[in-house]
Amino acid sequence: MSVTADAPAYPVDKVNRVKRRHDRGAYDHATVHAILDAAAMCHVSYVIDGQPYCTPTLFWREGTRLYWHGSSASRMLRNLSEGEPACLTVTHLDSLVMARCGFNHSADYRSAMCFGQARLVSDPDEKRQSLVMMVDRLFPNRTAGLRQSTAQEIKATAVVWMEIERASAKIRAKGVGDDEEDYALPIYAERLPVRMVIGEPEPCPRLMDGVARGEDLKAYRPGRTLDEALTEAYAEAYAAEAGA
Amino acid sequence: MSVTADAPAYPVDKVNRVKRRHDRGAYDHATVHAILDAAAMCHVSYVIDGQPYCTPTLFWREGTRLYWHGSSASRMLRNLSEGEPACLTVTHLDSLVMARCGFNHSADYRSAMCFGQARLVSDPDEKRQSLVMMVDRLFPNRTAGLRQSTAQEIKATAVVWMEIERASAKIRAKGVGDDEEDYALPIYAERLPVRMVIGEPEPCPRLMDGVARGEDLKAYRPGRTLDEALTEAYAEAYAAEAGA
Repeated sequence: MSVTADAPAYPVDKVNRVKRRHDRGAYDHATVHAILDAAAMCHVSYVIDGQPYCTPTLFWREGTRLYWHGSSASRMLRNLSEGEPACLTVTHLDSLVMARCGFNHSADYRSAMCFGQARLVSDPDEKRQSLVMMVDRLFPNRTAGLRQSTAQEIKATAVVWMEIERASAKIRAKGVGDDEEDYALPIYAERLPVRMVIGEPEPCPRLMDGVARGEDLKAYRPGRTLDEALTEAYAEAYAAEAGA
Repeated sequence: MSVTADAPAYPVDKVNRVKRRHDRGAYDHATVHAILDAAAMCHVSYVIDGQPYCTPTLFWREGTRLYWHGSSASRMLRNLSEGEPACLTVTHLDSLVMARCGFNHSADYRSAMCFGQARLVSDPDEKRQSLVMMVDRLFPNRTAGLRQSTAQEIKATAVVWMEIERASAKIRAKGVGDDEEDYALPIYAERLPVRMVIGEPEPCPRLMDGVARGEDLKAYRPGRTLDEALTEAYAEAYAAEAGA
């Protein structure tokens, strides 16, 4: 990754500085955002009474802001209404790496850690718009063709936002990296790639006659990787948004 | 999931009780452990100076104990030596679910959250043995054929353990679940399965002549799902361990 000195980047301090294997770290928006936008799911860490929680959830990005959602009744969200420190992390596992000694066994991956203060979206218009993008970020323009949300549904869904104050990306993409002298040993080593792959769509068995899969799902083709489809859908969704 | 009343289970209290969609929750060892053992990677949450961190790492289970590792220099591990509250979560994303309204859009998944006190492994024998299982849990008996670890490597690797004090599993596996009246609407809905699939192994280009892939990697066949391979390798590794 070659990043020019004036490319937009997140500030670095002791919270987000990559210490272990700092050569794998990056802080520029482009690198961090690409990792985020290639994912639908993240893990969010937050603290209640000194106890850390690590919760998986669906999320998306708008500029330097992250959004995620949950039930208005959930434990996590009740505690975030005042603005609580949180860390949202996305990780893509790309391979397992088998080396010639235990120490050099590893994995290729792309991860992004984002730090900030999580808060509930309280403005009604912003909440309605964010509930649209929660779906449309994945499936561009899908919401326009859906049964519209009821006031009760909107009330039952809490949306959380967090301005990214600090962030770091960490990428390992080198496969087998053994100590130089170990390459002369008669030991098998390999990089084993893994990919999150899209399967055959399973249409709802109760579809009405003549209802077909639409353009909103076109990025999601069987055999394609999910991160590629998500990246494409994300770009389309926000291009449509900008043109709307 | 049908669990008999006397099956081993983790205790339940306000920390780990599944509140949102409690019908999806389970606390028995078998359900929680199956989700853990099908994964190589987890996210661990911990707290430093009130700031939560969410860190991806490789991990494994022994009984009701979890292990993970990192550099002795890492920020996370330096802070865990005294025993720090942590939460280790594994999530398998199984599908995206497109429904007839925004509110019923969802995902199928299997996740396990484990709570306890994280501590460094300090006993030298336990540390050496855990460094063996870090590799052998993934690739049964692989360590025996590797260049053995040096004292410096062992020193540079910190191993963390955490007894699971509380845990919960949460599983959604129902695909499209719309409101009854919405099935009569001319709107397309589907379940889109996603799977983490093993690709073609990429042998190290510097292998010595005649060195071939061994039995230790046999669970990892191209086209197979990673969680299936990990589950099989895990069972073999600990069966070998018990027989050793």
